[in-house]
Amino acid sequence: MTDSVKYLLPEEKMPKAWYNLAADLPEPPAPPLHPGTLKPASADDLAAIFPRAVIEQEMTTERWVDIPEPVREVYRLWRPAPLIRARRLEKALDTPARIYFKYEGVSPAGSHKPNSAVPQAFYNKQEGIKKLSTETGAGQWGCSLAFAGSLYGLEVEVYMVKISYNQKPYRRALMETYGARCIPSPSNLTAAGRAILEKTPDTNGSLGIAISEAVEVAASRPDTNYALGSVLNHVCLHQTVIGEESLLQMEMADDYPDVVIACTGGGSNFAGLAFPYVRENLKGGRQTRVVGVEPASCPTLTRGRYAYDFGDTGHLTPLMKMHTLGSTFMPPGSHAGGLRYHGMSAIVSQVKELGLMEARSYWQTECFAAAVQFARAEGIVPAPESSHAIRGAIDEALRCKAEGKAETILFNLSGHGHFDMQAYTDYFAGKLVDAPFEEAALKEALDALPQVG
Amino acid sequence: MTDSVKYLLPEEKMPKAWYNLAADLPEPPAPPLHPGTLKPASADDLAAIFPRAVIEQEMTTERWVDIPEPVREVYRLWRPAPLIRARRLEKALDTPARIYFKYEGVSPAGSHKPNSAVPQAFYNKQEGIKKLSTETGAGQWGCSLAFAGSLYGLEVEVYMVKISYNQKPYRRALMETYGARCIPSPSNLTAAGRAILEKTPDTNGSLGIAISEAVEVAASRPDTNYALGSVLNHVCLHQTVIGEESLLQMEMADDYPDVVIACTGGGSNFAGLAFPYVRENLKGGRQTRVVGVEPASCPTLTRGRYAYDFGDTGHLTPLMKMHTLGSTFMPPGSHAGGLRYHGMSAIVSQVKELGLMEARSYWQTECFAAAVQFARAEGIVPAPESSHAIRGAIDEALRCKAEGKAETILFNLSGHGHFDMQAYTDYFAGKLVDAPFEEAALKEALDALPQVG
Repeated sequence: MTDSVKYLLPEEKMPKAWYNLAADLPEPPAPPLHPGTLKPASADDLAAIFPRAVIEQEMTTERWVDIPEPVREVYRLWRPAPLIRARRLEKALDTPARIYFKYEGVSPAGSHKPNSAVPQAFYNKQEGIKKLSTETGAGQWGCSLAFAGSLYGLEVEVYMVKISYNQKPYRRALMETYGARCIPSPSNLTAAGRAILEKTPDTNGSLGIAISEAVEVAASRPDTNYALGSVLNHVCLHQTVIGEESLLQMEMADDYPDVVIACTGGGSNFAGLAFPYVRENLKGGRQTRVVGVEPASCPTLTRGRYAYDFGDTGHLTPLMKMHTLGSTFMPPGSHAGGLRYHGMSAIVSQVKELGLMEARSYWQTECFAAAVQFARAEGIVPAPESSHAIRGAIDEALRCKAEGKAETILFNLSGHGHFDMQAYTDYFAGKLVDAPFEEAALKEALDALPQVG
Repeated sequence: MTDSVKYLLPEEKMPKAWYNLAADLPEPPAPPLHPGTLKPASADDLAAIFPRAVIEQEMTTERWVDIPEPVREVYRLWRPAPLIRARRLEKALDTPARIYFKYEGVSPAGSHKPNSAVPQAFYNKQEGIKKLSTETGAGQWGCSLAFAGSLYGLEVEVYMVKISYNQKPYRRALMETYGARCIPSPSNLTAAGRAILEKTPDTNGSLGIAISEAVEVAASRPDTNYALGSVLNHVCLHQTVIGEESLLQMEMADDYPDVVIACTGGGSNFAGLAFPYVRENLKGGRQTRVVGVEPASCPTLTRGRYAYDFGDTGHLTPLMKMHTLGSTFMPPGSHAGGLRYHGMSAIVSQVKELGLMEARSYWQTECFAAAVQFARAEGIVPAPESSHAIRGAIDEALRCKAEGKAETILFNLSGHGHFDMQAYTDYFAGKLVDAPFEEAALKEALDALPQVG
C-alpha cells in the first residue's frame, strides 16, 4: 500500500467525556478578573451572558466532563472524524517521517468549531434562551453557531470582522442559509461598534471589537446569551474530543506522535488536539513535542506579553492572564481571519509558561505555499488558518529528512478552505503580501496594558 | 433516538466491482454512430481520444467490471460514503415517510464525480497519456478531474461553460489549486469555440459547446486524451459504486426504498444510485419506483425527443440514441450548470423508453427552497444540481403525508454547494427568476435533429 490511508474510529468508540487539562496541570491558570473591580470574577458575574452549565464547565476542576447523549447524537453526524496518514505528502516531500492529520473539515460547517457550537447551543436551549449573539473572524465559528442554532431553533446573530465579511462572502451566505443574521463589525448597532467607527471609520475590524459588540448585545437582553468560539476553558474542553479520538486512532495505526502541531488563534483547536498529549507527557511516558503555530502578523505566543488583559477591545469582558499583544493592538488584515486575535486562551498560555509546549510563527504566503502543496498531494484544500499547521508539519518533515529521522508527526487540519477560495485566487495572482510587522504598534499596545496586581 | 442517523459501511465492504446494467436490460441501448459515416462507431473510432481500457468498459456486455485495487485505494480516502436517515427533515415535514440520502459530497472535490474521474485518470496514466482535456458545466466535473489529475501527475485542461465560469469563481480557484488550467468556453483556442464566438459573441456557452472544444483539443494531440464526466456508459458504470453501497447500507438500516430519486443532467449520478435498484426490480422482487429529476429549463427526459443526436454542439462526437432537446438547443442560464445539457445518457434514455423509470422537472427557485429547508434541518448545504433530487424527495414525503403512507424514500445528495454559495445569496436576494421555457427554440432545435436511419 503506497496510498494515503484513512483511520476511521468505530462510532461506539467516540469519546463519552471531554478532558479538562486544568485538573492535571502542576499550576492551574490564574483566575479571570472582573473588568470593573479587577477582583476574581465569580460565576454570578458570568450569568448575564452564559448558561449555568457552561459556567460550571468554565470553572470545573474535574478531570472528565460527560458529553450529554443528545450532543453525542449530533456529533455522530460527522464524528468520529478521520485520522489520515498522508503518504502522498510524505512521498512528495521525500521524507522518512510519517505524517498524520486529524481532519475536522468533515463537519457540516467545515471546521472543528461545531464541536463546541453544538454543546453551547444545547445548554442554552436547555436553559430557555431564545437567541445567541457571537462574533466571528474568518467565519468558521459564525457558520458553526449558525448551524447549531438551526438544529435547536435558536436565533443567531453574528458580528463578523469587517475585512472577512468583505473577503469571504460565501461564509456570510452559509450563515444566512442556516438562518442566521450576519453583520459586519464594527457596526452602528452597538455602543462599542459606534465608538470604534467614530475614531476609525475605515477600520478592518478585529475579533476584539466584534467580541465587544456581541457581548454588549447579550448583556442587554434577558433572552439572549453570548457564545464564544475559542479562548475560554469550556471551549478548549469541548474541543478535546479531537485529541481523544486521535489517541485511539494512532493506536489503530500502531503508531504514536513524536510531535503534534496545530494552529493557534484563540487556542481552541490547538487545545483540542494537544491537551490529551500534554496529559500523556505529564504522566511521564513517551514524550511528544507539542507545537502551536501562529501568524507572524499576529504573534501572540511568540511576541506577546504574559499578563492580565481584556479579551475584547471595548473592555467589556473579564481580564484573563494570557499571552497578549494588547487589546488595543490592531492586527493587519490577513486571510487567516480566525487567527487575528490579540490574546490567547488562558490555559494555553499557562501551558506555554510551564514549558509544556513550543510556539512558532509563519508568514501568510509561506503557509499558502504549504496549503497548495498539501492540496495537490492529498486532495483536501485547507482553510487559511489550518495552513499554518501544515506549514509547521511540512517543516518538521523536512527537518526529519535532513536529519534522517523517521519521526511521527501529527497535525490538526482544523477545517477546509471551500469558503475561502478567494484567498487562493489572490495567492496565485501574487496579490498576497506579507506586510512588515509594526513594531511600534506592538510597543504602544503593550504599554497600554492594564496595570493589575 | 430522534436525531438523524449516519450509516457507515465498513471499509472492507466497499464494492469490488462496478455494475453494468446493459447486461440485464431486456433490450440494450442502440449503438453510437460515427459522426461522419453514420454507421455504428467502432472501438478504433474512439481510440483517438480514449484509453483502451475505457473503450472496453464503454462497450462491455459483462454484468460486473472489477474496480482496480489502486482505484479502490484512492476511493478509500472518502468511500464508503455515508447513508444518512434524515430524521430532522422528516420531523420538519411532519411526514410518516422515512427519508434517507446517500451523501457523495464527502469526496475531496465535493461531489460524486471523482468516482469516475479517478479511474479515468488511472487508465489514462497506465496507457502513457500526459494530458487530459475536458469540459465542465457548474464545475463539479472539472474540479474532480483536476483532483484526479493531481493524484496521477497528469496535466488537466478544463473548458468551463462561460456562465458558470463567471458565476462560480471558487470552482475555478479549486481547479487551479489542484494545478489544472481552466478556460471559459467558448474560447478562441479551438475552431469549435471560434465558430460559436463568431456567430454569438455574447453567448453564455453550453456543455455541448464545451464538449466540442475539449474533444477537438484531445483529437489533435497524440499525448492528450479526452475525459467525459457523464453521459457515457463507462461513466454510469463507475458511478454504480453509489447504489451498490446504498443497498448494503439500507440493509444495515433494516429498510428498503419504495422510491429512489436523483437529479439528471447527463445521467451519471442518477445511474449510479438507481441502476442497482433497476436490476433488483428486473429480478422481480420488491419493486422500487425510480425517479429522475431534471430542471424545467432544460427538460431532456420530460420534453425531449428519443432520437439519434450529436453529443456536442460542434458535431465532433458520435451520435447517440437518447432523449434530446436538439444539439442546437441553448438552455437558459441557471445555477444548476451541471444539468444544462441538451442530451441524456443513452442507457438512461433506454431505461426510460423501457418504462423502468419515471422523470419529472422542477423550476430552479422551488429547488432552492427545498435546498434551504434541507440545510436548516440536516446541516448540509446542497449543490444546486442536487437540490433537484431534494425537491423530488420532499414532494414524495409530502405525498406520503397526504396519503398517510410510511414509505421509504432514498435520494442521492450528489454534492455540496460550498463552491456555489453565490447562488444562495442570489436566491435570498430574490434575484433568481424562472425564465419561461422557450417553446419556439425547442421546436427549432428538434426540427434540426439529424436525419438518421
